[in-house]
Amino acid sequence: MQRYFVSSSRFKDNNITITGDDVHHITRVMRYNVGDKIICNNEEGKAAICRISQVTSDEVQVIIETWLNENVELPINVTIAQGIPKGDKFDLVVQKGTELGAHAFIPFQADRSIAIWDKKKAEKKLQRFEKIIKEASEQSHRNKVPVIKSPVSVKDLIEESKNYHVKLFAYEEEAKVSKHQSFGNIINRLDPGQDILVCIGPEGGFSPKEAGLLKENNFSPVRLGPRILRTETAALYALASISYHFEEMRCSECQQ
Amino acid sequence: MQRYFVSSSRFKDNNITITGDDVHHITRVMRYNVGDKIICNNEEGKAAICRISQVTSDEVQVIIETWLNENVELPINVTIAQGIPKGDKFDLVVQKGTELGAHAFIPFQADRSIAIWDKKKAEKKLQRFEKIIKEASEQSHRNKVPVIKSPVSVKDLIEESKNYHVKLFAYEEEAKVSKHQSFGNIINRLDPGQDILVCIGPEGGFSPKEAGLLKENNFSPVRLGPRILRTETAALYALASISYHFEEMRCSECQQ
Repeated sequence: MQRYFVSSSRFKDNNITITGDDVHHITRVMRYNVGDKIICNNEEGKAAICRISQVTSDEVQVIIETWLNENVELPINVTIAQGIPKGDKFDLVVQKGTELGAHAFIPFQADRSIAIWDKKKAEKKLQRFEKIIKEASEQSHRNKVPVIKSPVSVKDLIEESKNYHVKLFAYEEEAKVSKHQSFGNIINRLDPGQDILVCIGPEGGFSPKEAGLLKENNFSPVRLGPRILRTETAALYALASISYHFEEMRCSECQQ
Repeated sequence: MQRYFVSSSRFKDNNITITGDDVHHITRVMRYNVGDKIICNNEEGKAAICRISQVTSDEVQVIIETWLNENVELPINVTIAQGIPKGDKFDLVVQKGTELGAHAFIPFQADRSIAIWDKKKAEKKLQRFEKIIKEASEQSHRNKVPVIKSPVSVKDLIEESKNYHVKLFAYEEEAKVSKHQSFGNIINRLDPGQDILVCIGPEGGFSPKEAGLLKENNFSPVRLGPRILRTETAALYALASISYHFEEMRCSECQQ
C-alpha cells in the first residue's frame, strides 16, 4: 500500500486532509480514487490505513480505518554529518541513508571540500534533499522522515556535537594503525534511545588539523573496515552496521 | 601511492612490465616518470612497492622494491547474485560492492527483471563492469579484484549454488513475519574461508515461484533490517554487515 507523510496538523479526529504534491501523486501517478486505501504517517511516527473519501483538484480527504502498530525505526538515533562532496554524491547519501534508517543529516564545509555551497546554492540543495528524503522514507516504509539541517562549519559541528551521547569520525589514517579503537566496540556500548553523531570527511578525508580538533573535542576516530571507502560509501557502511548490530544480530523476535 | 593490478604473467624476477590502459594512466593521468613509485598487485593478492625504471609509449617497466605484507580482504568469500535491475543500478552495485569487499558478482535474469540483457548487451555491460571493478579495487586498496560472471538464469544460479557453504536470499516478505530466521545468526555461524552466496532480487523482489524454488534448494530467506531496501542498497547492506561482523566487531588487533 502506498505511504504518504502528512503534517500532524492535517489530522482532525478520524479525517485527514492531504494537499500539495501528494494530491498529484495520489490522483495522477497512482490513479487512486474514492474507496481506495493508502497509509498515512504523521510526524510522531504513527501510521494508519486510510480510505479515500473525497477527491478534488487540490485536496484528497481520507478517513482513518486502522492505526498500525509498527516500528521500523532504528533504536539508535544516528545523525550523519557528511563533509560536502563533489557532484551529486550527497543525493546518494540522503537517499540510501534514509533507507538504512538515518535520523538526521548535517552537511558540513570541510577543509578538503572542493564544492562550496553558498547560501543560495544551499537553499536549492536542501529543497532537493528534502524531496529525496521524503520519497525514500515512503518507499522504505519509514515511520519518521529524517531531518536535513543547513550546512555548517566544522566549528559549528563541534558545538552541535554537545547534544550527542557518542560522537565519532571516520579517519582513514586509523585504518593503517594496527592498535586502534574498534568501531564494533563503540557500537556495542550504545544503548537504545541514544544519539550518535557519525562524521564522514569529503573526498580526501579530514585534514590533520580537523582530525586534531575533533579528537580534542572527544570525537573517537574509527575505521570502517580495512578497505578505503569512498566518502559516499562510508555513511552507508556505518548505518548498515548499526542496523545489523541492533536489528539483525540482537533480533529478539528471531529464531535462534 | 597509486595502485595497479597487473597480470601475474607480467612479473619476471624483480621486474614487471605494465601495458595497456594503465600506461596511459601512469604517464598521462598521474604524470609519473622514471624514479617514481607505485604499488603493483598480482592476481594472487600480493602487492609490492615498485620503482619505475623505464617508460616508452606503450610500456612502463618497474622494479620491485619491497613486497607488502597486507591483507584487506574479507575473511569470508561473499558472492553477490543480483537480479538484473533497471538503468545503471548494477554499476553502483559493482562499484560499492568492490569497495565493501565482495569476492564475485553474478547477474541473473529474474522473473521481475524489467531489463533484459541479450548476449550482445551483456558482453558490453560486462566490459563496463570489469572496468568499474578494477578502478574500485585500486581506489579501495583491495588485494584482489572481484570477478564478474556472465548473466545466468535462476535455474543456473541454483546449479552454481552447490559450490557454496551457505546460500541465502533477501526476501521482503520475511521482514513482515515476526518469527523469522535472523541474518545475524546465519552470519555468526560462518567460519573464515567459507563461501557465501547472497541473492538479491531485482526491483519488486523475487516472485513467489522463485522464492519457493530457492527455499527447496536450501537457500535461507532473510530480511536485511526491518525497512524495505531498494534492490541496489540490499547488496551493500549485506556486505557492510559481514565486514562489520568479521572485521570490526571481531577485530583481534583492536583495543578492547
